Amino acid sequence: MKLFNKRYHQPGTRPGMLAEPASDIFTLDLLEYDENSISVKRNLDVNVCRSFIGTEKVTWIHVQGDPPHDTLLSLAKTLDIHELYVEDIVNSGQRPKVELNEDQIFAILSFPVDNGSSVQLEQVSLCFSQNTVVSFCSGTVNPFSKIITRLNSGVGKLRRRKADYLFYSLIDTVIDFGFPLLESYSERIQTLEDLLCDSPDKAQLNQVHKLRRELLLVRRRLWPQREVINEILRDEDNSQISFETKLHFRDCHDHVISIMELLETYHEMTSGLMELYMTSVSLKLNDVMKVLTIIATIFIPPTFIVGVYGMNFDPNLSSLNMPEIQWEYGYIAVWGLIFSMTTGMLMFFRKHKWI
Amino acid sequence: MKLFNKRYHQPGTRPGMLAEPASDIFTLDLLEYDENSISVKRNLDVNVCRSFIGTEKVTWIHVQGDPPHDTLLSLAKTLDIHELYVEDIVNSGQRPKVELNEDQIFAILSFPVDNGSSVQLEQVSLCFSQNTVVSFCSGTVNPFSKIITRLNSGVGKLRRRKADYLFYSLIDTVIDFGFPLLESYSERIQTLEDLLCDSPDKAQLNQVHKLRRELLLVRRRLWPQREVINEILRDEDNSQISFETKLHFRDCHDHVISIMELLETYHEMTSGLMELYMTSVSLKLNDVMKVLTIIATIFIPPTFIVGVYGMNFDPNLSSLNMPEIQWEYGYIAVWGLIFSMTTGMLMFFRKHKWI
Amino acid sequence: MKLFNKRYHQPGTRPGMLAEPASDIFTLDLLEYDENSISVKRNLDVNVCRSFIGTEKVTWIHVQGDPPHDTLLSLAKTLDIHELYVEDIVNSGQRPKVELNEDQIFAILSFPVDNGSSVQLEQVSLCFSQNTVVSFCSGTVNPFSKIITRLNSGVGKLRRRKADYLFYSLIDTVIDFGFPLLESYSERIQTLEDLLCDSPDKAQLNQVHKLRRELLLVRRRLWPQREVINEILRDEDNSQISFETKLHFRDCHDHVISIMELLETYHEMTSGLMELYMTSVSLKLNDVMKVLTIIATIFIPPTFIVGVYGMNFDPNLSSLNMPEIQWEYGYIAVWGLIFSMTTGMLMFFRKHKWI
Amino acid sequence: MKLFNKRYHQPGTRPGMLAEPASDIFTLDLLEYDENSISVKRNLDVNVCRSFIGTEKVTWIHVQGDPPHDTLLSLAKTLDIHELYVEDIVNSGQRPKVELNEDQIFAILSFPVDNGSSVQLEQVSLCFSQNTVVSFCSGTVNPFSKIITRLNSGVGKLRRRKADYLFYSLIDTVIDFGFPLLESYSERIQTLEDLLCDSPDKAQLNQVHKLRRELLLVRRRLWPQREVINEILRDEDNSQISFETKLHFRDCHDHVISIMELLETYHEMTSGLMELYMTSVSLKLNDVMKVLTIIATIFIPPTFIVGVYGMNFDPNLSSLNMPEIQWEYGYIAVWGLIFSMTTGMLMFFRKHKWI
Amino acid sequence: MKLFNKRYHQPGTRPGMLAEPASDIFTLDLLEYDENSISVKRNLDVNVCRSFIGTEKVTWIHVQGDPPHDTLLSLAKTLDIHELYVEDIVNSGQRPKVELNEDQIFAILSFPVDNGSSVQLEQVSLCFSQNTVVSFCSGTVNPFSKIITRLNSGVGKLRRRKADYLFYSLIDTVIDFGFPLLESYSERIQTLEDLLCDSPDKAQLNQVHKLRRELLLVRRRLWPQREVINEILRDEDNSQISFETKLHFRDCHDHVISIMELLETYHEMTSGLMELYMTSVSLKLNDVMKVLTIIATIFIPPTFIVGVYGMNFDPNLSSLNMPEIQWEYGYIAVWGLIFSMTTGMLMFFRKHKWI
Repeated sequence: MKLFNKRYHQPGTRPGMLAEPASDIFTLDLLEYDENSISVKRNLDVNVCRSFIGTEKVTWIHVQGDPPHDTLLSLAKTLDIHELYVEDIVNSGQRPKVELNEDQIFAILSFPVDNGSSVQLEQVSLCFSQNTVVSFCSGTVNPFSKIITRLNSGVGKLRRRKADYLFYSLIDTVIDFGFPLLESYSERIQTLEDLLCDSPDKAQLNQVHKLRRELLLVRRRLWPQREVINEILRDEDNSQISFETKLHFRDCHDHVISIMELLETYHEMTSGLMELYMTSVSLKLNDVMKVLTIIATIFIPPTFIVGVYGMNFDPNLSSLNMPEIQWEYGYIAVWGLIFSMTTGMLMFFRKHKWI
Repeated sequence: MKLFNKRYHQPGTRPGMLAEPASDIFTLDLLEYDENSISVKRNLDVNVCRSFIGTEKVTWIHVQGDPPHDTLLSLAKTLDIHELYVEDIVNSGQRPKVELNEDQIFAILSFPVDNGSSVQLEQVSLCFSQNTVVSFCSGTVNPFSKIITRLNSGVGKLRRRKADYLFYSLIDTVIDFGFPLLESYSERIQTLEDLLCDSPDKAQLNQVHKLRRELLLVRRRLWPQREVINEILRDEDNSQISFETKLHFRDCHDHVISIMELLETYHEMTSGLMELYMTSVSLKLNDVMKVLTIIATIFIPPTFIVGVYGMNFDPNLSSLNMPEIQWEYGYIAVWGLIFSMTTGMLMFFRKHKWI
Repeated sequence: MKLFNKRYHQPGTRPGMLAEPASDIFTLDLLEYDENSISVKRNLDVNVCRSFIGTEKVTWIHVQGDPPHDTLLSLAKTLDIHELYVEDIVNSGQRPKVELNEDQIFAILSFPVDNGSSVQLEQVSLCFSQNTVVSFCSGTVNPFSKIITRLNSGVGKLRRRKADYLFYSLIDTVIDFGFPLLESYSERIQTLEDLLCDSPDKAQLNQVHKLRRELLLVRRRLWPQREVINEILRDEDNSQISFETKLHFRDCHDHVISIMELLETYHEMTSGLMELYMTSVSLKLNDVMKVLTIIATIFIPPTFIVGVYGMNFDPNLSSLNMPEIQWEYGYIAVWGLIFSMTTGMLMFFRKHKWI
Repeated sequence: MKLFNKRYHQPGTRPGMLAEPASDIFTLDLLEYDENSISVKRNLDVNVCRSFIGTEKVTWIHVQGDPPHDTLLSLAKTLDIHELYVEDIVNSGQRPKVELNEDQIFAILSFPVDNGSSVQLEQVSLCFSQNTVVSFCSGTVNPFSKIITRLNSGVGKLRRRKADYLFYSLIDTVIDFGFPLLESYSERIQTLEDLLCDSPDKAQLNQVHKLRRELLLVRRRLWPQREVINEILRDEDNSQISFETKLHFRDCHDHVISIMELLETYHEMTSGLMELYMTSVSLKLNDVMKVLTIIATIFIPPTFIVGVYGMNFDPNLSSLNMPEIQWEYGYIAVWGLIFSMTTGMLMFFRKHKWI
Repeated sequence: MKLFNKRYHQPGTRPGMLAEPASDIFTLDLLEYDENSISVKRNLDVNVCRSFIGTEKVTWIHVQGDPPHDTLLSLAKTLDIHELYVEDIVNSGQRPKVELNEDQIFAILSFPVDNGSSVQLEQVSLCFSQNTVVSFCSGTVNPFSKIITRLNSGVGKLRRRKADYLFYSLIDTVIDFGFPLLESYSERIQTLEDLLCDSPDKAQLNQVHKLRRELLLVRRRLWPQREVINEILRDEDNSQISFETKLHFRDCHDHVISIMELLETYHEMTSGLMELYMTSVSLKLNDVMKVLTIIATIFIPPTFIVGVYGMNFDPNLSSLNMPEIQWEYGYIAVWGLIFSMTTGMLMFFRKHKWI
């Protein structure tokens, strides 16, 4: 995960300036439905959209990928989206936010895409007004495929309700992507915890660091989503969202708080893992040092003693020159000395709990 | 304790969807009482419940374990429980919360079950309206057995009061389960503290880490209970809860704050234990290294000296070739040299407080 | 200081249940006074109290120790104390709090008793209504002996004022017990600071840990007292406390904030001490390791060299077999080699600042 | 970056006292424009300015560098700037702030100048009233060159709007300078992260410390800018800023929050880097110690053994004096002993995972 | 700086009790001025003061040092200062605070006196009512000498304004003493930073600890000054302080916030220094250990080898007894073995980046 993922313009550039799209790959799908019927248009031309706006039915336009500027601006004009919002849609890496205008709600959210080795955050922009919802999603993964299936099948309340319920469903879906992410994090933490206690090595240090860093970034980028749902709930005046849908938003609010609390907890936990790691390393060092010290304590003093009797003083020249080496039990005595000396020292150190 | 204990649906699944029950084991008990009489029905059929609702007496239905969906939905219909609440009841691992509706209070709480080796959190869902209270409890341990006994015996105010007092009593019971938990934590911390100072080893490191992790998780999961009681107290308009019962809720509020503060304190304390552990390990290492250094200081230099006189230069070939080994007091002199050298060095290092 | 000091009942027990008193030792003293006269009754029977309530004079009843339940309940009935408050008085270890009722103020506070080796927190419960104040104090130390002296002497405003001023004086006294406690903590920190820099050893580690733990616990238990004074000050409607007495409560508020800030500061400081300790230990280790390395650098290489010339190759068999030992200046050369080698290495390492 | 960059007077000096300008180098440029025309005056004399104030067109005066006091005071008099604000303009190193007066807005901001090796913060002071904006910028880098280009080209809304939009554009530009700064920080963190895991050395330690220090300082100095934008947005009464421009300020608010959150995140990350560094160092130490211990374990015990048979006890004098050296397979046996001993010890330690 | 600097009475002592003055040294100066004239009375008798109160002119009484109780009480009576405030003036070490009464403002502040080796905080108490200001300052350093000079010279607005401006000027002066203090701290931090990276030693550890401790204490004691200025600014009703003077207080508010933020930053920075120190120490240890390990790796194995050929097995007794020592190239071979072995090991360890 990149530390800095915001697309920005040089300071002083005029507002409303659009960044070049990373690619030209995009799809524009349109669904129009009421309780009785549904029609799905795939890869629709942007100019055809206009005829679907303002009808009695609910219209949902979903743009996936990087649309070219003229497509986007034409769509923005049709749907009356402010140029600052268009800039936010294009310059991905925005902080999640919601703008509650009188007849329009504009929201930016992030959802995590776990592509095996790392987690990427993609931006979802939603614009809801009257009975139209437009959604823009960067990247190639469409988070709303289950919603399309539900709409097509007609099971549940989705088809029977107004656009506000569709708007809720899209937000709820994006936020719920936090749960599988958290579950995978919990497994990674669990695995690391088990490994760390056993045998700390370099690979695990990198993993703990990477995990902590990722949790820090994900937490920061998802954190404002809490505020987004909060603001929608607090907005008493806005009559666009029905009371029944607000009940569902409260449920969604519970989810977003649960997710943030878990991210917080996991982040604290990885800090704990780093400390655990360090302590494990210190403990290991102690073990290693004890081995060294035991070896040294057992063998260095005897080495000195046998060194003494390897000196070449000639006992024949003087009776003070190592007479021991001519004693009958000299050799035995040396062994005895070594043995008792080593034992004594080991006992002494053990008594003082030094080794 | 599992890091991730929430049952959730794939993102995009329609709201109100119920998870499969983990088992089919459940009991449904019903108590109906007023000041003068009480009748207890065990393992009641769900369809019979209906006839007890709406009477003058207080009705308490307690569902333990995982009821099948049809039982639950039938009960929900009888008692007018919203489908989102039913989802919360089934998908255990919810964040504690309270929903204060005009004529119904729905609350989710957690209570800890200490099964010897580890602590499990079970979800309790309560729904109170008029003179009916329904309680759902996951797992196999019924936290309310003492309440049933009190109701049967008729001692105290419980039988004389309305359903709001029963509702309070159930919540109070669930929250008070924090106290024995805290007491057991305090004992574990105390034990670890005593052990750590004496002799830090690997097993204790794991215990400290496990304890810290558990406190972190328990704290996070019980934390919102504070908000639950707070919201009940703040809800001035709601006439369902009498003034006298609110007084008791204030007492309950004191308990929940005490519990959270103690959990916080214990968590801080285990972080302190980790630091204490690390410092103990470092201190131990210092001791070990001192031993090694003393050994080295005492024996390595003399080993060199005796090595010198173990060289095979022949003093007979040249008067400069180790004449010492032919001196009369050579051997004695070597011992003297070794002794004074070692003493000198030890004194020097001691003076500088290095060893 | 115990980690868990709250007396609690098993979850589900009915509210208002009283814990068994730890002992039966208690005293009940009654003081009745106005500006002109004072009468003191020691060890009064609880039933006699009733006749002193409701008179024009100020009545102060002080209960020290663990009164039996019937005494307590009789007193509670006389003074109209709610059963939940009675429970709080008996189940010591409560969180400090204040309950501001229309015609009664009930407060729970803690005060520290420093019995040499450790600090104990005793609970003080105060109940003030009209011109009666009742105080309950657990343990054997009466914190109010100075107040009694002041009342008897009649110096100052105490006798001239109403019961609200007595109520204030009792609270102020309990809170001011924080100052001598803080002073003794500051001395312990100072002493440890001086010791730590000099020579870190195990005993100090335990002392730092114990101090930090104690500060953590004391801080947590005294913290809510701040809220107690705050609530009394904020309570505008309550006409029981005169404006002049409120001025004194503001002074008391300054004290309680000073105490909490100092406790906070001292707690932060002991965390700093722990770090200082660890760094001192590391520094010590470095010193020890330098000694070892210098010894090793000076003596291990020469030991190898003298070992070389202790080999038993016979120079007489081949002119390549250690011809050095037959050189005239061989021995001198070996010493020279040893000397220059050691010097060189020491200089090299010193230059690189390794030792 | 300097730790202390505030210019201040000695305590007790009278307010409104101006610090001596660091240099006399300054430029005073004036732009006057409306939708149709624009005139640019470079290095204008301060006394000529007066004639441009109060016209229908928008007037922007930009002062770069350190103007002398008389120039500044003359300008302040012309534009009705309070003497305290003049003091703030001169005494650079002020905390960012905004003063919302009835007919004048005075704002102080900081923008970072990255001159290769280190980051400098320069102060920008803005004063906006009616259709005049005055900007003061310390240092030599003019942050507004792009704005001047946009004004000259006439592209976009800048020329069509009133002075409030110019005021917004200047603030937005200053704040957006945070993005390139953050991007360069993210790269430095990334580079350090990659290096640290591989081989921690002293240079990196200094870099991590320098980075953390810089982030701490930048964060502190830019933090109040958040409050500045907030206050402008909150100021409902002030009719100087049009609704449309407020919309743009909300966009600017998003930017300033994004910047602060990223600075916070990066600061947390560098603390993580410090920990990673320390753990890497410990891990390295463990590796080094293992090498030492393996060497010691393999070679010290055999050295003792060969020392034994280097003793000069004469086997001919006594049958107990090292008879081994006269055995036929003695030498082989010694090698066998050494080999099996070393292997045994290595296996033993490996089994206990000590080395 | 002392950890505990508050003078307090034993708990239970009556309020308004005064501590004995530390010394009897004090001066009482009085200045009376309006725009046209000024008269200064030094070492005035307290009873003479009365005649200066209540005149048209502004009267400023400054008491430096420890005045005796009767002087103080007489002054308090003249100026109508509450007995609790008198207690606060005498019992120095108070927390900064402000008491906003209807016709009187009483403020307590602290200012730092840097006497070379350490920083002392002295208490300044100010009492302002109508056109009289009284200031009390503990210690011997008069912080207001510059104000007296300004008053005498008559330059600036001080003489032209009312007593509220004098009150502001005194507070501003006391607060601005924070800036030189911060500058000296920034220099100490800078110096330590440079030293730490080079060569960490014990003296620096003590300095870092001392600095952190001092910053912690100064921050705590100056922190409430922020609240003091805040409360003066918020106090809308109070007509004693003119609007123009409030503008100056806002400037003063900026200063006090700047000072607190810098103290915070510096405190965080010294914590960073402690970590930097620890890491430097660890790094140093690594260097030392590498030296030891290289020495050991190069010399211990060869020492073993030469030990082998120092054994006294007699090759003449058996053809298996060290035949090598009779080979022609034996000695050369040993050197070759030693050389290749050492090189091999060093290469192996280097390849694995262990040393």
